[in-house]
Amino acid sequence: MTTAPESLTTLHEALLSERAAGIKQSAVRDVFELSLDPSLVSLAGGNPFLQLLPLEKVGEIARRIIVERGPEALQYGSGLGTPELRAQIIDVMAAEGITNVKVEDVVVTNGSQSAQDMACKVFCDPGDTVLCEDPTYVGALNTFEAYQVKARPVGTDGNGLIPSALRERIAELRAAGERIKFLYTIPNFNNPSGITLAAERRQEIVDICREAGILILEDNPYGMLRYEGTPAPTLRSLDPENVIYMGSFSKIFAPGLRIGWAAVPTHLFRRFYLAGEAVALCPPTLNQMIISAYLQEHDWKGQITKYNDLYRARRDAMLEALAKYLPAGVTHTHPEGGFFVWLTLPEGIDTYALLQQGVKAGVIFIPGAAFSPSGAADNKLRLAFCSVDEKTIDEGVKRLADLLTNEISKL
Amino acid sequence: MTTAPESLTTLHEALLSERAAGIKQSAVRDVFELSLDPSLVSLAGGNPFLQLLPLEKVGEIARRIIVERGPEALQYGSGLGTPELRAQIIDVMAAEGITNVKVEDVVVTNGSQSAQDMACKVFCDPGDTVLCEDPTYVGALNTFEAYQVKARPVGTDGNGLIPSALRERIAELRAAGERIKFLYTIPNFNNPSGITLAAERRQEIVDICREAGILILEDNPYGMLRYEGTPAPTLRSLDPENVIYMGSFSKIFAPGLRIGWAAVPTHLFRRFYLAGEAVALCPPTLNQMIISAYLQEHDWKGQITKYNDLYRARRDAMLEALAKYLPAGVTHTHPEGGFFVWLTLPEGIDTYALLQQGVKAGVIFIPGAAFSPSGAADNKLRLAFCSVDEKTIDEGVKRLADLLTNEISKL
Repeated sequence: MTTAPESLTTLHEALLSERAAGIKQSAVRDVFELSLDPSLVSLAGGNPFLQLLPLEKVGEIARRIIVERGPEALQYGSGLGTPELRAQIIDVMAAEGITNVKVEDVVVTNGSQSAQDMACKVFCDPGDTVLCEDPTYVGALNTFEAYQVKARPVGTDGNGLIPSALRERIAELRAAGERIKFLYTIPNFNNPSGITLAAERRQEIVDICREAGILILEDNPYGMLRYEGTPAPTLRSLDPENVIYMGSFSKIFAPGLRIGWAAVPTHLFRRFYLAGEAVALCPPTLNQMIISAYLQEHDWKGQITKYNDLYRARRDAMLEALAKYLPAGVTHTHPEGGFFVWLTLPEGIDTYALLQQGVKAGVIFIPGAAFSPSGAADNKLRLAFCSVDEKTIDEGVKRLADLLTNEISKL
Repeated sequence: MTTAPESLTTLHEALLSERAAGIKQSAVRDVFELSLDPSLVSLAGGNPFLQLLPLEKVGEIARRIIVERGPEALQYGSGLGTPELRAQIIDVMAAEGITNVKVEDVVVTNGSQSAQDMACKVFCDPGDTVLCEDPTYVGALNTFEAYQVKARPVGTDGNGLIPSALRERIAELRAAGERIKFLYTIPNFNNPSGITLAAERRQEIVDICREAGILILEDNPYGMLRYEGTPAPTLRSLDPENVIYMGSFSKIFAPGLRIGWAAVPTHLFRRFYLAGEAVALCPPTLNQMIISAYLQEHDWKGQITKYNDLYRARRDAMLEALAKYLPAGVTHTHPEGGFFVWLTLPEGIDTYALLQQGVKAGVIFIPGAAFSPSGAADNKLRLAFCSVDEKTIDEGVKRLADLLTNEISKL
């Protein structure tokens, strides 16, 4: 319990890996503590609204599994995941229109986050390049940094990745000698932007990567949480040989179980799954069995419909409040699904500084810079509408809008 | 579902990271499928005997947590682990005589395996060196390979690491220009050797590393599973500033929950925990809450006593069977705790080949080579006594001994 002498601390600094310096706290995590203060309206966290789950039923499932099959449920399992859940994941993907995955090509993971880690482990050496949207998921950016990988943004608009921009970016980076390994993309209801890649662009995006010899890492945790419009085909369904697809039970069931999956092209499967086994041996068996029983015994698709009705109402409440309260000069996206709306403020307003004022004004959000590989999002911020009710959303947006009106008046 | 054209497979091979080639299947996993065949006696897997757990009680705990606190239990949590479990881990460590850890220095991990991954992420660049016992835990060797780290064995005898050998090895490797980051050690009932580091050597081992500016990664999953003799102080308790301690609920409760922890020197804590957060965001919340309630409501120390009584009887049965059946020329260790006995056969017998014969003869084990950083364990093998009853152990050892007698006669 004594404090390390200065000399030991210095010695230990010298032991750190080169990558250690790049491993940073996620900005989403920065505000995690803040978000527990009940006097604040949190529009920060992307936490699903679990109160809607059939908790009595899930509790009874867990009890029964432990009592009747405890020595299996509480034991080590296969690094691939349980055979039952892997087979069911085929059905879950089918519900999203993905019908070209074999059960042998599915590996269960510790949430989608660990599938990203596995992809970097298998494909990325320090100094390699990955392509991504700007903004994109902060957890993926953190993983890329932990692997000393350059995350290079590709041009987007309100319809997602721009095919011609992707083509040009690849040519430009290759001309500069960069080794591009994969395109990381969240085609549906991007976190944080809420933007969806237009259906008519998808085949072209897939073709460009295939022709360029670049893999696609398709991250689709929100795909089934659609509140309007028509589902577009997943990239995986358009090119099963060149797309690693990452799915998750975090948004359609429960994130606290930490269970996701990856569907991997057959010829890459073994390398991919061994990379995960080396990190955590196997995903928790009990959690997989709970999900299997839930999928088997509960109307999980009906549950998603319930979720979608709730989230749609909350999204609408947020969009209405934004229309009602936001001052001129602030724009925002219109998400067709997922959890997030992305705000762009006038240049010169720093949303990191604004967060501190937000805390005083009683509303929190995530500053945009965290999500930007280019660092060009200081005047942007993410709002989540998933975890608070309509009235609270209205109040939170009002508090934020008052703050923004005041800030803009000072410009 | 089409097969990738040869050209695409070749393209993707070119995308692999340098480390990918080193990520291999664990030999323990190789026999996982085999061990499910009921006609075979499996002395292979180190699976705790979970039938001894109070399954009704654990099942009811899980039900109650989900029903009463589901929105918390099924939600994302802190990357540090739940405050309740972190506080309880202080008590669990105290039961092993470790009283110098602050709760702020404890991070909950996805099993011990992921704590090893975190240590490599934070400290190891490709080409760096770690020191370890020979033989040592195959999962650690896999992790080291995944980080392109050289695992250098240090001389051991029946009392574990030899201090003078450690001192010499450090000097020798440094003279050769190697960058040594830490000593990875399992001081109690080593997996696979069953050997325990003698109490009187521990201070010296700790001092040598401290003086040399090398961290210690102490892996202690079996520490409380002692069947004879007196507990020796953990390395962590001898030097809290230079030892990262890894504990696990896998052996004292249930591995299928995938919950372990690390106690990290204060000045290294933040970097260590962020490395884990980047991989999996947070350990599963439900699993942590189940363990917290189990520790709170069940006589968990009494449960360990029950486990120890069972495992002691099984160990004794194995040692008796080995004494009764083994042919001359085969030696083995005498573990004071843990799960494993380590056999050394005459030179010239390859235990990988022997495993195939074992399958035909109805007994399986883990070939030694998997556990050896020097590759000098082809004539050794690991037996586990934890998961089968005494009668089955006797039968399994008899089958193995017959096989060995036959092999030795051919030398």
